[in-house]
Amino acid sequence: MGQTVTEKILSAHLVEGKLVKGERIGLKIDQTLTQDATGTMAYLEFEAIGVDRVRTELSVSYVDHNMIQGDFRNPDDHRYLQDVAAKYGILYSPPGNGICHQLHVERFARPGKTLLGSDSHTPTSSGVGMLAIGAGGLDVALAMAGEPFPVAVPRVVKVHLTGTLQPFVSAKDVILEVLRRIGVKGGVGKVLEYAGPGVATLSVPDRATITNMGAETGATSSVFPSDEVTRQWFVAQGREDQWVPLAADPDAVYDEVIDIDLSSLEPLVAQPSQPDRVVKVREIAGLKVDQVMFGSCTNSSLRDIEAVANILDGRIVHPNVDAGISPGSRQVVAESSASGAFSKLVAAGVRILEVSCGACIGMGFAPPTEGISLRTINRNFLGRCGHKTGKVYLVSPEVAAASALAGELIDPRDLAQKLGIQSFRFQQPAALKVDDRRIQHPAADPSKVTIRRGPNIAPLPVMKPLGASLDGPVLLKVGDDITTDHIMPAGAKILPLRSNVPAISKHVFEVVDETFPDRALASGGGFVVGGSNYGQGSSREHAALAPRYLGVQAVLVKSFARIHLANLVNFGILPLVFQKPEDYDRIDRDDKLSLNVSKITAGGPFVVRNLTKGAEISCDTPVTREDLEVIAAGGRLNWVKGRKK
Amino acid sequence: MGQTVTEKILSAHLVEGKLVKGERIGLKIDQTLTQDATGTMAYLEFEAIGVDRVRTELSVSYVDHNMIQGDFRNPDDHRYLQDVAAKYGILYSPPGNGICHQLHVERFARPGKTLLGSDSHTPTSSGVGMLAIGAGGLDVALAMAGEPFPVAVPRVVKVHLTGTLQPFVSAKDVILEVLRRIGVKGGVGKVLEYAGPGVATLSVPDRATITNMGAETGATSSVFPSDEVTRQWFVAQGREDQWVPLAADPDAVYDEVIDIDLSSLEPLVAQPSQPDRVVKVREIAGLKVDQVMFGSCTNSSLRDIEAVANILDGRIVHPNVDAGISPGSRQVVAESSASGAFSKLVAAGVRILEVSCGACIGMGFAPPTEGISLRTINRNFLGRCGHKTGKVYLVSPEVAAASALAGELIDPRDLAQKLGIQSFRFQQPAALKVDDRRIQHPAADPSKVTIRRGPNIAPLPVMKPLGASLDGPVLLKVGDDITTDHIMPAGAKILPLRSNVPAISKHVFEVVDETFPDRALASGGGFVVGGSNYGQGSSREHAALAPRYLGVQAVLVKSFARIHLANLVNFGILPLVFQKPEDYDRIDRDDKLSLNVSKITAGGPFVVRNLTKGAEISCDTPVTREDLEVIAAGGRLNWVKGRKK
Repeated sequence: MGQTVTEKILSAHLVEGKLVKGERIGLKIDQTLTQDATGTMAYLEFEAIGVDRVRTELSVSYVDHNMIQGDFRNPDDHRYLQDVAAKYGILYSPPGNGICHQLHVERFARPGKTLLGSDSHTPTSSGVGMLAIGAGGLDVALAMAGEPFPVAVPRVVKVHLTGTLQPFVSAKDVILEVLRRIGVKGGVGKVLEYAGPGVATLSVPDRATITNMGAETGATSSVFPSDEVTRQWFVAQGREDQWVPLAADPDAVYDEVIDIDLSSLEPLVAQPSQPDRVVKVREIAGLKVDQVMFGSCTNSSLRDIEAVANILDGRIVHPNVDAGISPGSRQVVAESSASGAFSKLVAAGVRILEVSCGACIGMGFAPPTEGISLRTINRNFLGRCGHKTGKVYLVSPEVAAASALAGELIDPRDLAQKLGIQSFRFQQPAALKVDDRRIQHPAADPSKVTIRRGPNIAPLPVMKPLGASLDGPVLLKVGDDITTDHIMPAGAKILPLRSNVPAISKHVFEVVDETFPDRALASGGGFVVGGSNYGQGSSREHAALAPRYLGVQAVLVKSFARIHLANLVNFGILPLVFQKPEDYDRIDRDDKLSLNVSKITAGGPFVVRNLTKGAEISCDTPVTREDLEVIAAGGRLNWVKGRKK
Repeated sequence: MGQTVTEKILSAHLVEGKLVKGERIGLKIDQTLTQDATGTMAYLEFEAIGVDRVRTELSVSYVDHNMIQGDFRNPDDHRYLQDVAAKYGILYSPPGNGICHQLHVERFARPGKTLLGSDSHTPTSSGVGMLAIGAGGLDVALAMAGEPFPVAVPRVVKVHLTGTLQPFVSAKDVILEVLRRIGVKGGVGKVLEYAGPGVATLSVPDRATITNMGAETGATSSVFPSDEVTRQWFVAQGREDQWVPLAADPDAVYDEVIDIDLSSLEPLVAQPSQPDRVVKVREIAGLKVDQVMFGSCTNSSLRDIEAVANILDGRIVHPNVDAGISPGSRQVVAESSASGAFSKLVAAGVRILEVSCGACIGMGFAPPTEGISLRTINRNFLGRCGHKTGKVYLVSPEVAAASALAGELIDPRDLAQKLGIQSFRFQQPAALKVDDRRIQHPAADPSKVTIRRGPNIAPLPVMKPLGASLDGPVLLKVGDDITTDHIMPAGAKILPLRSNVPAISKHVFEVVDETFPDRALASGGGFVVGGSNYGQGSSREHAALAPRYLGVQAVLVKSFARIHLANLVNFGILPLVFQKPEDYDRIDRDDKLSLNVSKITAGGPFVVRNLTKGAEISCDTPVTREDLEVIAAGGRLNWVKGRKK
């Protein structure tokens, strides 16, 4: 039987278990990436594991998130990351060099390889035919130490593309269409594998936009084949020797098929505050816009800047709109400067923000109170833009550019007709400006590297093993689609605390209930109860580590998002699911719950007692037997160390 | 008797008093500028004055300081400024358009005119032969309302320039040399007027660098003549019709003369934490550098970027150096993009920060803990870079660029010799890219403009008139050269509070004594005691307004800086000076002081009793009789309103 691209890569990297859908396997990881917002913790964990050098083919440490540097904390983190990289055999990409995903696609991604990254948008690199997966920092640290990555064998969904995108419709609209169809939990446990004749019509940056934002479906990854278009990308990057072809076998069998006719797509928009609240732009056109943001790992390629420049050329941003761009990398800035696109944006009045993730994660460029912000980013979760009242709409570069001129949300086709703007077809340059001189290589003599730790870099908290029973109050009850931005908010105020667990813990669930941290600490342990798709979004392990630090022992929900589930296990929080979703209504905040730990089994069911209501709740845990050992040990670091003895 | 340039402009704008050195006059103000960090308060005050339209020839509201936008507060302030401008007849320059001083020199400064700006570096515009003065926001608000600006007739110092700058020596070294000679209080009560054959060798951007940083001497302003070089600048800006020649009469008489032979200057550096701690770069060369910052209102012109590009061209920033640039304006970005200089910086690994004041005021790009930061800015006060442990050295663009490559402080002449870098002579383009489309004009119908006020924009505090006696403890005793960055720190955490006096007051004297705000509030009124040059630095009136809000009634010091002294009067804090400087030693913190208000006279002397030590301190107040009326009324707003009745 033929194989999908996904299965080919999985087969070639299988080191534990069998390729049976849903079964846990151990996957050999060829490459890792970290970024600074998750990286400091990942490297503190790597140091705790105690390996003297990374055991991957390639590991890269990027700085792209925490670049405001309002005080010493961000730059101290950068220095720590630089020193760790030099000492342990990791490449270091300093601030200003590029957004990790854009840069990885440019310089390091390779067809057929596996990549594990401590960022949920790591699948961006799968646009060139590799299997790139986002994970918590500890999983990435373990991969750097040579451990196989534990993951459930995904179901493979064929996204069958036909036709070609019409003028002013672009790759962002493809992934918005996928989200419109399958929603923010539609990809959980799956890989979205793109196939069909439409694939060849998409450039590598187009593909990367699609695989990037595939993360919003909850998918394990999204994968494109490696074809002639891919080869040309590698040629342009001076890496032709690293290119290999990779395609699904003609008789490959998929678990599901989604058909998308590219020719039929129109400009789309995701409304606040979920990426799947997708409608056609024309349906809500006319909405007054306060702010437009171009860039982010989703839409900051040369193609995207050229597309924006084509619309803005010679025109000026509407006086009521504050527009800014974060280009994706130094290469993108160099190329767009040379092509003239960059100058067109400057002339049009677009603010040139830093080459960084910045505004996407509330690290600057927040909209005003109740402000409407159109962004080419991938997430519009509550509060993620810097504050709760901002209303973020996710759009393509074309929609963003047209609306920046109009001062209101507008279909770019309508503006083009009005202003006589010609449609645009991106021509990938045959050779791109390659300049890796800012990438720093490990020290020749690691013993001479002393790692500098700023005063905000706190030691890892020590976790205690699980007791014989879990008893405590329900500290918080939340609904469906709770994101990691609810659990552990980002933004300019909180992100600088990413290397300091005691400090960042004071902000857990801040956008939901500011009293949570104090109550959790005071209770000496307790439960969080939630709905479906709990932990959607980011790979940030702080969303598990910080609640655990506050005393959260178990999280009982209808269903979990993949990466957050793994993070809970890694930090010794017991993930529980209702066997009957309606039991969600039989628990309220402050109810006292009790669970006999010896009764917990990987298969379930077992009972959580609601002592307050005198009810018995039948539960399961969506983890493996080994995971339960990890949780019992007080998290994976304890477990790994125990295993070594 | 002939006149100096300064005297010619003063004469032409004299509306109250006589041109006698040291006497208070009222000056007609032609133009005003504000920036967003001081502007929100200035416009709240303007609204309180109750005039329906500005009465100046030109008023411009710039946004250039608070551009991080970590949450809604910065963008809400921008929106408020935009609305106020539209309603009251002010031009609005939105974020991204440029640093106020750079942009004002480019587009609005005019020889022979007066400019009052709520920023201490307003004298930048005097580089084209106007008299530009920095002042507190309330003074600027009153000028917008048509009131004459009260200022003491300055002594005029001729800075006589001969010779020409040698390769890799530039305008920054001229002003560093001035600071080396006369220090941070050497310009108080004076205008530094540049003359001599060396003037013609300096471009307008060179001159603007010098007049900009002249503020660090405490001077009322620094002035260049308007000559053929100036005319060419106006031609290049498409403003030839606004140019007039202006020079001192051959028989003009100066109060002092400073001779500087440009040919003899070498690269200089000001060491932490005062701009006059100047030595030759070669004296401390070899110092390891963590960070290099290009830009700011002092050094962000096209000339400066070209000078940096000349050194960085084809080379790469040292791996241990984090380098960034904030270009001065959209025009500078457009020109340097077209010339290729911008691309050279990107290629060299320089981070492209926003077109803003940003890092100069701790609004981002802070160095790491104990980090050494070389900056082309004008101030290196304690904590101003974002935290107290950062060590900021002030240098020219050439020194900064050479050191960025070397990884250590180096004289650019030495690096040039080593690497074979050719010297650079800037050729001012005959025509510059003029694009004022982002400058927003006032509304056609002001009655239709509703001013939007975000939740962080607090009403102005109401100030009570002075009582019959001032009694209270010494809340704080500080030393010499206390800057406004000591009194009311800036930085990413505190700047967003500039439109909220109750909130920002919690940070008064934070870098000196964190207990100050609580103690001041609890005491119900008190004194601050200091040394000489108290209030050096910024024009920020918050350094008077916030202490007043906390209950500070009087400040007793050896001497004051000009703008801060005016701000104290404006907000009803009594400024006192020791008649005998040694009496400073007869007062300690927590001593109880008492002053009979009826005894206060503008001429002095009068007695402040130290009840704790049983001592009598002979004092004077460096203000006019009218100022005392203002203070008695509880500040100038009360006084102006009282006068109108």
